[in-house]
Formats: sequence, C-alpha cells, structure tokens
Amino acid sequence: MGWCIIATWKFSLAGITAAAKLVGEGGSSLDAVEMVARYVEDDPSVESVGYGAIPNVDGEIELDAAIMEGDTLSIGAVMCVKGYRNPVSIARRVLEDTPHNILVGRGAEDFAARKGFEKTMLLNCQSIEKWLEKKAEAGERLKKGLDYKVPMGHDTVGIVSLDTLGKMASATSTSGTGMKLGGRVGDSPLVGSGFYVDSYVGGAAATGVGEDIMRCCTCFYAVELMREGYSPGEAAELAVKKTHKRLLEKRGRVGNIAIVCADNKGNFGGACNHQGFEYAAASHNCPPRVYMVTPIDG
Amino acid sequence: MGWCIIATWKFSLAGITAAAKLVGEGGSSLDAVEMVARYVEDDPSVESVGYGAIPNVDGEIELDAAIMEGDTLSIGAVMCVKGYRNPVSIARRVLEDTPHNILVGRGAEDFAARKGFEKTMLLNCQSIEKWLEKKAEAGERLKKGLDYKVPMGHDTVGIVSLDTLGKMASATSTSGTGMKLGGRVGDSPLVGSGFYVDSYVGGAAATGVGEDIMRCCTCFYAVELMREGYSPGEAAELAVKKTHKRLLEKRGRVGNIAIVCADNKGNFGGACNHQGFEYAAASHNCPPRVYMVTPIDG
Repeated sequence: MGWCIIATWKFSLAGITAAAKLVGEGGSSLDAVEMVARYVEDDPSVESVGYGAIPNVDGEIELDAAIMEGDTLSIGAVMCVKGYRNPVSIARRVLEDTPHNILVGRGAEDFAARKGFEKTMLLNCQSIEKWLEKKAEAGERLKKGLDYKVPMGHDTVGIVSLDTLGKMASATSTSGTGMKLGGRVGDSPLVGSGFYVDSYVGGAAATGVGEDIMRCCTCFYAVELMREGYSPGEAAELAVKKTHKRLLEKRGRVGNIAIVCADNKGNFGGACNHQGFEYAAASHNCPPRVYMVTPIDG
Repeated sequence: MGWCIIATWKFSLAGITAAAKLVGEGGSSLDAVEMVARYVEDDPSVESVGYGAIPNVDGEIELDAAIMEGDTLSIGAVMCVKGYRNPVSIARRVLEDTPHNILVGRGAEDFAARKGFEKTMLLNCQSIEKWLEKKAEAGERLKKGLDYKVPMGHDTVGIVSLDTLGKMASATSTSGTGMKLGGRVGDSPLVGSGFYVDSYVGGAAATGVGEDIMRCCTCFYAVELMREGYSPGEAAELAVKKTHKRLLEKRGRVGNIAIVCADNKGNFGGACNHQGFEYAAASHNCPPRVYMVTPIDG
C-alpha cells in the first residue's frame, strides 16, 4: 500500500528523510510525524521551533505543539510550555495518557515532569543575541507597554503522514512568533486551524501568521475539500485562496499563509500566498526532496 | 433591521434578557455577548463558569473564554486564567489591545493585571465542598496519579448575537470540566470548535464534552452549513449529527454535544445529542425565553 510524509519548510528535509525510512519499512504515521517534529525541535539553526528559538518579549522561549491521529481523531496538544525541548512528545503523552486533548502552561510542564521529561535550557547564544537585537529595535515602544508592532515570524513545522497500514497522523511544533507577548498562542496547537487529519480522507498542516490562519480554520477546511474529492494540491490551493480572499475582504490585509496536504492514497501537495515557501516530502514513489511552491494568484 | 441573541443553557436567561434590551435599543453584538458571559461568570449558582465553579484536580479554578467579531473575524481568547472573575472581558482586551488572538496562563494573567483587572477569589464555600466531595470519590485512583476517569461536566455558556447594524459576535466562557487536570483546556476558547461567527452568514457556539467537539470543529462546520443555505436550526442539527456519527464510527463513543446557531437575519436554533439541553434566546420578534431542545436521532 502507498505511503507518504510531507512537512513544511526545507528545514524538515533531514527529518523527512529519516521518517520516510521509518514509514517505508512499516512504521506508524504517529511515530513518523513525531520524529520529524523532534528533528526540527532539536535543530538549533531553526529559529522558530524548539531549541535555540527567538524568545518572546520577556526573553523566554514558550513552545506549542500538537499531534493528531487520523483513525480515531485523537488529539494531544500543549501550549506555552517552557523548559522542555520536545513539546511534540509531551503532546503525544497527553494524547495517549490522559482523558484530555490539551494542557497549557504550568499544567503542561507539571505533566511533562511527572512523565519523566527532562527539564532543559532552550536558550542558546543565538537566541540571546537575536533577542537583544530585536529588543533594541522595539526600543521606546516596548518600554511604554504593548503598543508596538509584534513581528510576525512564522516558520512552524507542520507534518502529515500516511503509513502502509493506511493510518494517517499530523503534528505541529513551534516557538511562535519571536518577541510575541508572554502567553501568546497561534494556530499551531489549534485543531482545525494549524492541523487536521482524518484517515478516511487526508490531512493538512499550516505555517504562517497564526492569528490569520485561525480566523478561517484553514486546515479543517482543506480536509473537507479533500473529502469532497479535491486532490491534496487542489485542496491546499483552494483553502489558501479562500483564507486569503476572505481576510482581504474582511480586514483589508492578510499575513503569510502556507499549508501542506496529503491524502490517504499517498498523494501530496502544498500551497501558499507568498514567495519563498518550500516543503519537504517523500512517498512510496518519490524519494525525499524539497519542493518550491508557486504562490496563488492573490 | 432584525436582531437576535442566543445562549446555551437556561442559566443564560437573565443575561439574555439584559442583552436583548441592549441590542434592541441599538447596542452592539460585541457588548451583548460579553454582557451575557459576564452575567453567567458572576452567578455563583453556575458550577461550570466563573465564580463558584468546581475546581480542577489540584483545587484551583482555571477559566477559559473567547470572543469573536463577525465583521472582521477578530478574535480574543484566554485560557487557563486564575484569579480573575470575568475572563470574557480579558479576552475582549486581547482582541482590542494586542496584535494577538490568544493569551494563556501566566501571560494572560499578567496581561489582565496590566489592563487593570482586579485579582479576586474564585472559590466559594460551594466550590470547596464540591471539590472535597469529588476528591473523596476519586480516592485511591487520584493518589496514584492520572489513572482515574475525569468526570466530563460541560455547561459552558456560549453566545451568538446579531445587532441592528447587522454586525454579529460570539463568545464563550467556562471553567471547564470539574476535577480536570491542571492546565486542561477544552473546546470553548478554540475558534471553530467552541465558537465561530461571520457576519456574512451567522454564528455558532457549543457546550458539551470539549474533547469531542474539537475533533470535528463543530461550530465552524455549522457556520459553513449556514453559508450553503441551511437555516440556523438545520445547520445546528446537521453539525451535531455529523459530529455524533463520525465520533461513533471512529471511536465507538461520543460525549454530550449541543450547539446554538443564529444567522444574519435574526433566525436562531439549537441542537443536541442528549436529553436536557435548553437554550435562552430573544430577537426582534421573540421576547426572551428558554427553549427546550429535542435530541437528534442518534
């Protein structure tokens, strides 16, 4: 049976390559999406996920992650977790070991500690330098409180996988936008907005300005389009177009939005509303590689 | 022009009555939905929202709330906030005063303090008695850690309003399920799951087992059904039916789910998959009253 795995951004290629081997040899989608997220979380060169990310306005790194299983629609998510390097794995424990779907903040950290996760330092020299630089830029406005424009960084890792048993899964992991307010959460850990997967159909995962993506539940909508018969590439494109158009109409502006989709046959695709979006993918008939995406006509 | 306001559960009637007067006299939907949520938050007889709620497993009351504006799809939400009585009003400040949509935990509390909200005691004697009683019931299982069945209380207040200018809004507020794990968040503050509103179409708000509602993004789906031409009552029924059926197929079980819907003409309706669900509503041609809902055919 066909399989595939797809994830946002070029930085996912190493994880996709390892996870393609896992899934190709019969491993599960749930293990595969967690593996890709962990690769990116552990990579200090990625400034927007896990270790070495750009801190929030208070100089702290707060992480969000989620994981979803497409056979049962089981969900695990954590938001605003400090001091743990692999929030996707804490999210998986929420999915597997609790009657809940979401734990946030201190509750999620206490849970991680009870589950034996190791408390660690997420800051590195690069995080600190970036933070000092951005703080100097924000300057006087920051001193006055909230009245400054938060830069909208958005390189979330979002993953969808189909395994050889036909099971699908999705995951996301992010540190959110650098210099965000303490406690800010975007779309990534929100089911239907940052991710969605149903093994009957397919899955989707998003990256971009979380505040905008959640206004249109872009990933749930993309999966509904696949349910109606659209291919993953068509569904991704239509979902991004609808989100883009609706936000322009309603708000007169729209942030960067990109999604990746895969169906339960092993087809995949992506779409975006801005230059420069790439994703990494592999399947039963495509070796791991990076794909550059042409933006939709705005 | 027509107006309406609808909210989950009988306990919303006092708030609906006050908000109907506000909207009927030209007040805004955003003010109206906030008003209804505040009425319920302040009511100590409601064990599942605001002051006097049943605490989590650690004996703390953690509140979630959200507010959404249907013209611009602007969102404000807070999750897991301790020590503030009216989380819906903090959510509104997130919507109006920040570039973000969601603040959680400590970050949300610090934000509330900066905005001048008064720190208060959410526990009352009733909360404490209920907690001691439930803790005794959980007994030995609790001592062993997480391995006990969390009771799934679910009386969230969820509100949708249309004002005489044609603007719509939605809000939710909840303390979540009593004896939940610390940090647990359900569907209520999650856009698309606990609430959704688009002034071009209509809005929806949910109450029930949040873990199940979010698996199907029930409120976003209901609004999409109204976009296709279904009435609020039909959209509510179809959305609850789909959620119920899909979860039975996928998981073999489904919790209590109920939603209320209103469209941009002033029509409203509700649906549920269990006995005993009531909502309160009023419109330009219906005085404030409580409606009992017949469950869908499971």
